[in-house]
Amino acid sequence: MGEGCHEPEASDKSVVQPNKDALLKRLSRIEGQVRGIGGMIESDRYCVDVLTQIAAAKSALDAVALQLLENHVKGCVTQAIVDGDAAARIDELIAVVRKIR
Amino acid sequence: MGEGCHEPEASDKSVVQPNKDALLKRLSRIEGQVRGIGGMIESDRYCVDVLTQIAAAKSALDAVALQLLENHVKGCVTQAIVDGDAAARIDELIAVVRKIR
Amino acid sequence: MGEGCHEPEASDKSVVQPNKDALLKRLSRIEGQVRGIGGMIESDRYCVDVLTQIAAAKSALDAVALQLLENHVKGCVTQAIVDGDAAARIDELIAVVRKIR
Amino acid sequence: MGEGCHEPEASDKSVVQPNKDALLKRLSRIEGQVRGIGGMIESDRYCVDVLTQIAAAKSALDAVALQLLENHVKGCVTQAIVDGDAAARIDELIAVVRKIR
Repeated sequence: MGEGCHEPEASDKSVVQPNKDALLKRLSRIEGQVRGIGGMIESDRYCVDVLTQIAAAKSALDAVALQLLENHVKGCVTQAIVDGDAAARIDELIAVVRKIR
Repeated sequence: MGEGCHEPEASDKSVVQPNKDALLKRLSRIEGQVRGIGGMIESDRYCVDVLTQIAAAKSALDAVALQLLENHVKGCVTQAIVDGDAAARIDELIAVVRKIR
Repeated sequence: MGEGCHEPEASDKSVVQPNKDALLKRLSRIEGQVRGIGGMIESDRYCVDVLTQIAAAKSALDAVALQLLENHVKGCVTQAIVDGDAAARIDELIAVVRKIR
Repeated sequence: MGEGCHEPEASDKSVVQPNKDALLKRLSRIEGQVRGIGGMIESDRYCVDVLTQIAAAKSALDAVALQLLENHVKGCVTQAIVDGDAAARIDELIAVVRKIR
């Protein structure tokens, strides 16, 4: 059974992320980073310093996205392949890879 | 005079962003987006839906970065070129463009 | 059987891409684009025009990468999951998604 | 005078890149990389190996783009700022940064 992927109904699929707490911690840190960027602009910090922090927040979001992608492949995509009905799930996977780049 | 760019001392340059309030509003919205992504994981939302929101938060950060870049070129970089000492500022500009991509 | 993925030996895996001719045509067009970019610089074309063509060649490469990624998931990753030994293949998939972004 | 930027007429601006030969050498190498990627697909090489080479060709294109961007800022953008008519040139710069990311 693919980890975490329960599909009562296609539209409201629910997924318990295996590393849920760690993901939530990272997201709350990123929230703090974004608040910090606002604070830098509030206190008229130099543009390049602010831009450097934006790059850091973006790469933190990237890292969360890659972890979710891994969870998704190990969970829902694996489950769909095991169930023999993977085509739609793989198309969805490639579409979301295109989006998060 | 380049808009907003006051250089009392190289290390603690300060820049009053011309569109400061708008930038702060956008950043607080992005903060809300990141909090919302945490909420989606908290409530076990489908991975692809969460990834789609991460892509949206990233592109909102990108848009803020490009606005800051424009302000920086119109402010500090323009000021450095007018003062005839642009080399370091342009190298710094290219380095930050590399970072925010 | 995952389309195209023959694994005589782990190290020299070979994969017959299902849409091989189309991929080769696209790559030869991209080769022409890159040659054209050289021609633009040779004939002193305006920097922004050259940069616009570089962006086009990059996104053409991106499109080929996404097609290969889809082939890979439908082929080798699916095969590994069906064979019940997917962990290494999924880690490899996530690592290559990180690279091609 | 901004290096290399001659503007006989706005529409057919011509720019002699200061590091023209080096740029041409890099582009011809990238052309070879793209040809090599085609060769890998021709000889049924493993998808992940091909994707790795596409990532390398993309980052080589990125490096050329950043060099051109630097040349452009040191040349045409500097010239426009010195001439006191930079607004359009800076807008064009930000638009092309958005494209090459």
